Amino acid sequence: MTIPKDARINLSPEDIPKRWYNLASDIPDLKPPLNPGTGQPAKPEDFEAIFCKEIIRQEGTTERYVDIPEEVRDNLIYLNRPAPLQRAYRLEKYLKTPAKIYFKREDMSPLGSHKGNTALAQAYYNAEAGVHTLTTETGAGQWGTALAMVSNLYDLDTTVFMVRGSFEAKPLRKTIINTYGAKIYSSPSEYTEFGRKILKEHPETSGSLGIAISEACEMAAKDEHICYSLGSVLNHVMLHQTVIGQETMQQMEIGEIEPDYVVACTGGGSNFAGMTFPMLGQKIHGKKFKDTQFVAVEPKAAPSLTEGEFKYDFGDTAGFTPLLMMYTLGSNFIPSAIHAGGLRYHGMSPLVSAAYDTGMISARSYDQTQTFEAGLLMARTEGIIPAPESCHALKGAIDLALDAKAKNEEKTIVFCLSGHGLLDLYGYEQYMDGTLQSSDIHS
Amino acid sequence: MTIPKDARINLSPEDIPKRWYNLASDIPDLKPPLNPGTGQPAKPEDFEAIFCKEIIRQEGTTERYVDIPEEVRDNLIYLNRPAPLQRAYRLEKYLKTPAKIYFKREDMSPLGSHKGNTALAQAYYNAEAGVHTLTTETGAGQWGTALAMVSNLYDLDTTVFMVRGSFEAKPLRKTIINTYGAKIYSSPSEYTEFGRKILKEHPETSGSLGIAISEACEMAAKDEHICYSLGSVLNHVMLHQTVIGQETMQQMEIGEIEPDYVVACTGGGSNFAGMTFPMLGQKIHGKKFKDTQFVAVEPKAAPSLTEGEFKYDFGDTAGFTPLLMMYTLGSNFIPSAIHAGGLRYHGMSPLVSAAYDTGMISARSYDQTQTFEAGLLMARTEGIIPAPESCHALKGAIDLALDAKAKNEEKTIVFCLSGHGLLDLYGYEQYMDGTLQSSDIHS
Repeated sequence: MTIPKDARINLSPEDIPKRWYNLASDIPDLKPPLNPGTGQPAKPEDFEAIFCKEIIRQEGTTERYVDIPEEVRDNLIYLNRPAPLQRAYRLEKYLKTPAKIYFKREDMSPLGSHKGNTALAQAYYNAEAGVHTLTTETGAGQWGTALAMVSNLYDLDTTVFMVRGSFEAKPLRKTIINTYGAKIYSSPSEYTEFGRKILKEHPETSGSLGIAISEACEMAAKDEHICYSLGSVLNHVMLHQTVIGQETMQQMEIGEIEPDYVVACTGGGSNFAGMTFPMLGQKIHGKKFKDTQFVAVEPKAAPSLTEGEFKYDFGDTAGFTPLLMMYTLGSNFIPSAIHAGGLRYHGMSPLVSAAYDTGMISARSYDQTQTFEAGLLMARTEGIIPAPESCHALKGAIDLALDAKAKNEEKTIVFCLSGHGLLDLYGYEQYMDGTLQSSDIHS
Repeated sequence: MTIPKDARINLSPEDIPKRWYNLASDIPDLKPPLNPGTGQPAKPEDFEAIFCKEIIRQEGTTERYVDIPEEVRDNLIYLNRPAPLQRAYRLEKYLKTPAKIYFKREDMSPLGSHKGNTALAQAYYNAEAGVHTLTTETGAGQWGTALAMVSNLYDLDTTVFMVRGSFEAKPLRKTIINTYGAKIYSSPSEYTEFGRKILKEHPETSGSLGIAISEACEMAAKDEHICYSLGSVLNHVMLHQTVIGQETMQQMEIGEIEPDYVVACTGGGSNFAGMTFPMLGQKIHGKKFKDTQFVAVEPKAAPSLTEGEFKYDFGDTAGFTPLLMMYTLGSNFIPSAIHAGGLRYHGMSPLVSAAYDTGMISARSYDQTQTFEAGLLMARTEGIIPAPESCHALKGAIDLALDAKAKNEEKTIVFCLSGHGLLDLYGYEQYMDGTLQSSDIHS
């Protein structure tokens, strides 16, 4: 036995993409965000209190590509980019499937997830604009960790509002964010008017992502040198994540891999967008991926694509954000406390939503017990413990491989392993000892 | 700015070394292990109850190189080998040092440390010999995790005895070892005669590495299809780790890096040996590294090289193992409960000890508060949170860089980052909140 050529396809730092791909350029009738006060399309000025100008420009741009600044591209090395594309030979063997399964390794980042790709870009543009502090919210903690880490690369301070329930349940996230030098507050906090108001009215609340967003935005709106940063949903976030799919396309070319399926998990949509949008762009223009199917995998606890409605809705619970045209379960929908905290969101990125609405992509959903079963199998065959979010994409890939086995078809499946699960081991423990709860909203 | 050539030096899977280097071949008067009963050099048969034949052969061999079986070499890919060599530009800048600092990234393994390099080889040889189960002990948990993971690659079962104190303090290690499908017992356990005896006499004991070793050996000795596996100290372990240093030599050649100092942490010695032995071999034969200094960094809590005595001593507390000629603090020495659990050992690998005794390497020790300070700096400059063990090597490298600054010398320092600290964040938390205890045995 010698190492097969496609066991692991690496790229060099020089191969890191030089520009981001913008799917908005290829969806001509994309519905703009609306100002909830006027009901009219939101203007750039509507965002200026919380975002810097270049981020606002990228949010609205319809240009096909946006150049990646050298200062961002160079620093992608700190996220261990480029990330390998690997073949899951041992998983294939275990499944006894004729399908080939490849996975893109976003777990290789020191942050443990893909979240750094946009954190890096956002930190850079804010630093260039003279901002000295970024604020954000975090639920499970992956996003807060990413922003805390990259802020150091551009000498920014970061303040993270972490949903109180998670803050208390996941003390390691507080520690890692502090280790990177950022401030982190349990939300609702005493540090904002809105936080104090909630604390007064509901002292026992376990908080919510909506409250945390409101606190982060309030802090940003009060000082022109403080801006707000978001880790998913918005167009500029999807844009920055496209380094994932562009690298994967290079690697598939090297490995002569022609995928029948490309699979990624979806919460707010940033991992799915990063993985698939560059390929969708090729498909739309008839260049490649003619017969490739793109599969979004979401949790049954928050099935916005498979069970939501395509309409204008608020991005947060309190209704402070512009209205976004997206698949949504309703901005007052509270998903159950699944371990895949990164997928617990009532809505879906407007770009991913538009792609779904036009039939360019499909979607399926799984209960968390099914996804942890897949994660355990990945650990025992490929040696990698996936993040609970990534277990969703993995489960989707496994089911497609089993389907190929049933039909005896040599399908090629490529999925995105969005991160590792070393900071989420408690979910695995619950799965193994039988105490993991079903997360199906219907059960 | 463009990415400098030496910012990160990657190798391809084809560059993974094809053989291990054996320092024993270059130390002619190496003292053999002694049978404690007879006082005579231990014979291969003395080890046969617990080790398979090829492991015993490698333990005693004086051949200069041992070929790496293809079945092991191919599987190094599951440990994300080859590992990058990276330059710490941002750390250098922070320190304002004229020194160049490079680090070898053993943190990139899905296991989070270098321990898999020997686990893989040991699992292979045991599987080839018809063994179906491996037993081992683990203190901090890195070694038990590594053996649990690689056992799957060769369809072996693994049973880990984890020191009760750690077992209760670090529940995540139990979870990760279970996730990889291995059994893990709190030691002393009900599963061995020795464990039951201790439990009866000292029901409240928090256990010790010595007791856990005794339990693992007892289980192995009772069944010819069960063997024992050790993660450090012995010659064959040092041998298997030399992929680290051999890769680093290739990378230094590519980057035209001529080190003044090569630095690694030392507990039982496997990381230090893996990093430096291939270079020491070149130095001994006058080929390279003529002026390079090799620096072992150990904790003040267990300073076997800097404060121990070079003599024959037992490898375990109970006195069941052969006598090893090594620097030791005495086999009844119990180090304080520092976070760098991988460095809590009373003795030092006989090969590292011999190298130290002949003056080929030097050693220094640090208190754990100093090493966590260094770790925090690494996190905030380079974005990587080092394992508590690795913080020792890092602290050594930083001090050498500051020394170069004081003397205004352009020194080149290469250190081994033996692992990441994502499963050891509690130590960082204690350091940051001021509750971390000094670990100096004199304080």
